Amino acid sequence: RTMSVVTLEKCRENIQKQLDNVVDFWLKYSHDRVHGGFFTCIGRDGNIYDELKYVWLQGRQVWMYCRLYRTMDRFHKPEILEAAVAGGAFLRKFARVSNSSGQWKCAFCLTRDGKALKVQRTIFSECFYIMAMDELSKVTGDKDMQLEAEQMMEQLIYWVQVDPSGLGRPQLPGEVPINSLSVPMMLMCLVQQITEGRGQEVSQKYKELGIWCVQQILQHIQRAGTAILENVSVDGSELPGCQGRLQNPGHALEAGWFLMLYGAQWGDKEIQRTAIRNFVELPYQYGWDKEHGGLFYFLDVDGHCPTQLEWSMKLWWPHCEALIAFLMAYNHTRKPELLEIFSEVYQYTFSHFPDAENGEWFGYLTQQGKVALDFKGGPFKGFFHVPRCLYMCERILDDLLENKD
Amino acid sequence: RTMSVVTLEKCRENIQKQLDNVVDFWLKYSHDRVHGGFFTCIGRDGNIYDELKYVWLQGRQVWMYCRLYRTMDRFHKPEILEAAVAGGAFLRKFARVSNSSGQWKCAFCLTRDGKALKVQRTIFSECFYIMAMDELSKVTGDKDMQLEAEQMMEQLIYWVQVDPSGLGRPQLPGEVPINSLSVPMMLMCLVQQITEGRGQEVSQKYKELGIWCVQQILQHIQRAGTAILENVSVDGSELPGCQGRLQNPGHALEAGWFLMLYGAQWGDKEIQRTAIRNFVELPYQYGWDKEHGGLFYFLDVDGHCPTQLEWSMKLWWPHCEALIAFLMAYNHTRKPELLEIFSEVYQYTFSHFPDAENGEWFGYLTQQGKVALDFKGGPFKGFFHVPRCLYMCERILDDLLENKD
Repeated sequence: RTMSVVTLEKCRENIQKQLDNVVDFWLKYSHDRVHGGFFTCIGRDGNIYDELKYVWLQGRQVWMYCRLYRTMDRFHKPEILEAAVAGGAFLRKFARVSNSSGQWKCAFCLTRDGKALKVQRTIFSECFYIMAMDELSKVTGDKDMQLEAEQMMEQLIYWVQVDPSGLGRPQLPGEVPINSLSVPMMLMCLVQQITEGRGQEVSQKYKELGIWCVQQILQHIQRAGTAILENVSVDGSELPGCQGRLQNPGHALEAGWFLMLYGAQWGDKEIQRTAIRNFVELPYQYGWDKEHGGLFYFLDVDGHCPTQLEWSMKLWWPHCEALIAFLMAYNHTRKPELLEIFSEVYQYTFSHFPDAENGEWFGYLTQQGKVALDFKGGPFKGFFHVPRCLYMCERILDDLLENKD
Repeated sequence: RTMSVVTLEKCRENIQKQLDNVVDFWLKYSHDRVHGGFFTCIGRDGNIYDELKYVWLQGRQVWMYCRLYRTMDRFHKPEILEAAVAGGAFLRKFARVSNSSGQWKCAFCLTRDGKALKVQRTIFSECFYIMAMDELSKVTGDKDMQLEAEQMMEQLIYWVQVDPSGLGRPQLPGEVPINSLSVPMMLMCLVQQITEGRGQEVSQKYKELGIWCVQQILQHIQRAGTAILENVSVDGSELPGCQGRLQNPGHALEAGWFLMLYGAQWGDKEIQRTAIRNFVELPYQYGWDKEHGGLFYFLDVDGHCPTQLEWSMKLWWPHCEALIAFLMAYNHTRKPELLEIFSEVYQYTFSHFPDAENGEWFGYLTQQGKVALDFKGGPFKGFFHVPRCLYMCERILDDLLENKD
C-alpha cells in the first residue's frame, strides 16, 4: 500500500500542476488594478462577490508571491514580483492604524480603497503584515522594510509577553490569562521567517524567543501525552469547560511541521520526535473522521459536542497542514506508516477540494464531503494555505526523490 | 390539505405537552442552587458540559418563567416564581458592569460565580436584561425593578439614536452607519414589553419610539418589495457587498409577528397587511429549502454563496418564529394558504427538532435534517425560543378554537 517512487513522482507532477493552476487563478482574478491590493472574496468561477480587502489575506498573498518568486525558478517572473510589490505598497499605505495608546495596530478589514473597516483585538493582522514585509524585503533588499518588520515584531512581542492592553480588550474580573496554541505558533513562524538567511546576529537575537515559543507550544500536550488541547492556562494546566477541552486537529498538525522545522534548524532530535508523535500522528488519530474521511475542524477531548456550529465540517486548510506534516515527517524518518497516512490524506484532499472546472480549491465541505460553500476566496481563505501546501510538498518531494534509497 | 378544527385541537394538545416537557427540562437541569442563576450549557441528556452563564440566556429565562407564571394558570406555581426571582437577583447582582464612560453596560458571559468574562460591543445583553427586569416587576410589583428597566431602556435608546460610542467600538473611517434589522426589532419588542399593561402614560411615552422602530423595520423591504435584507443604510438604501445582500429568513419572520402585534395594538391594518405579505409570506418563499425542507439560516439575495459557514444549516429558532408568524397571520386573516404553510412548517419542526428520548429540542441540523450539534442548551440556545413559540402558539390556538366559524 505504501507509495512507490513512481507514485511519488506522479504525486509531485500533480502537485506542480496544481500549484501552477492556483497561482494562475489568483494572478488572473485577484489583482485590483484601480486601487491596488488584492480582492479576496472571489466566487467559484473567479467573480468578485465582495470588494472588501481582508488584511490577513493581503499580507499572506504578498508573502506567498515573494516566497515563490525567491525560491522557485518557474515563478521568478516580473509579473509575480510586481504583484507582490504592489500588494506590499497597499498594505504599508493602508493597513496600519494607530491605537488609542499611539501604538501601531493593523486593521482586519479595509474597504476597496483602503479605509479601515474593522480592527480585531488580536495579534494576527500584525503577524501577516510582518510576514509580508520581511519576505518582501528579502526579495527587494529594502532595508527600511526589513526594519519595519522588526519594529512591528517588537510591538507584537511586547503585547504577548509584557502587556496586552494595547490590543484594546478590557481586562475583566472573570478572565484568566490563556495560552492559546495559535499565539506561540504564529510567533515561532515569525521567528523562522525573520531569522531565515539573516545571519548569526539576527538568529541569536531571536533565539530566546524561539525557545519560549517551543516551550509554550509543548504545554498543549495534555492528558499524559494523549491529547493536544487548543487552550491551556499560562502555567500549562487544563482549563475548565468547552474552551479547555477544545481540539483543533489542523492547528496541531500545523504546529507539528513548524516544530519539525525548528528541530531541523537547531539540530534538536528530541523536538522532532515529539513533533511527529504528539503533533502529527496524534491529531490524525483523533481528528480523522473514520466514517466519512477527512479531518474534523473542532473536537471536544471528552467527546461532548463542540459548540462551534461548523465543528464537523471538512475545511481545506487542515488538510493542507496534514499533507505538509506527514510528508515532512516521512522525509525525516522514512517510516512507511507516515507515508501511508500522507497517501490517505492526499487521496481525500485531491478527490474533494480541487475544482477541475474553474480552477483553485473549494474550502468548505460538509462532514459527508459535499461542497457547502463554493467560493474560492473569502474572509479567511485567500492565496495562502493551498499554495503554501503545494509549494512545501513539491520541495519535500524534490528532496525525497533526489535522496531516494 | 388544510388543517381541520380536529387537527388544530390535536395540534394544540401536542403543543401543550411539548411546553410542559420543555419547562420540566429546564426546571430539572438548569438551576444552579449553589451560586444562583441558570446553567445554560446543557447536553443532550441534561448534563452540564460548561458552567459559564450567558447573560442573554439568563435574562430570557427569567422573562419566560415570569411570562408563563403570570399568564398561564398551569404554570402559576411557586417553584416557577422562585426560580424567576432567583434568576433576577443573580442578574442584578452580577450582569451589570460599567463601561469606561461610567455608563451601565451588561456583560455577555459570566463565570459560574458571576464574574464578568466577556462584554459585547452591542446592545443585546442589555435588551434581555430589560425584558427580564420589566416582566419580573410585573409579577412581583417591584417598582424599583420597573424603574431600573426603564433607566436601562433610556441608556439603550441613547446608544441607538444619539451616540453609540459608549458601546466601546472605535469609529473607523471605512465604516458607514448601518440599519441592522435586529436593532429596531429588539427595540420594538422592548417597547411592547415595557408598555404592556402599564396604562396610557407609559404607552404615550414610548409611542414615538414605536413609530420609529416600525419605520426602521420597513426600510428592510427592498427590491420593489421582493426581498427583506438584513442590513441597509440608515437612509434605507441597499449596502454593497455580502453585508448588503444578506438575508436571514428567521429574523424576517420574527419581525413579521412583532409587526402584527404592533398593528393589532394600534389598530393599523396597513401594517398588518405589510407584515404578512413582506415579512411572513415572502421570507418563507425565499427561505424554505425546496429540496430538503426547513428554513435556511442565511441566504444571499443575488444567489451568491453566503460566507457564514453555517448558512445552509437548519436551526430551531427560525422554525419557532415561522410557527408563530404563520399561525398569527392565519388567525388575523383566516386565509387557508397561511394555515397550509403553518402545517408544513409544523410537520418539519416536530419531526426534526424535539428529542423524544431525553426531552427538549435539538437546535442545529444539517441542511439534510440530521442533528449536527446535539446539546439542548449552548451559548445561544436557552429557555427562550422553544417555550416562547409553544406558549404563543398555544394561546393563538386557544383563540382560534374559541372563535371558530
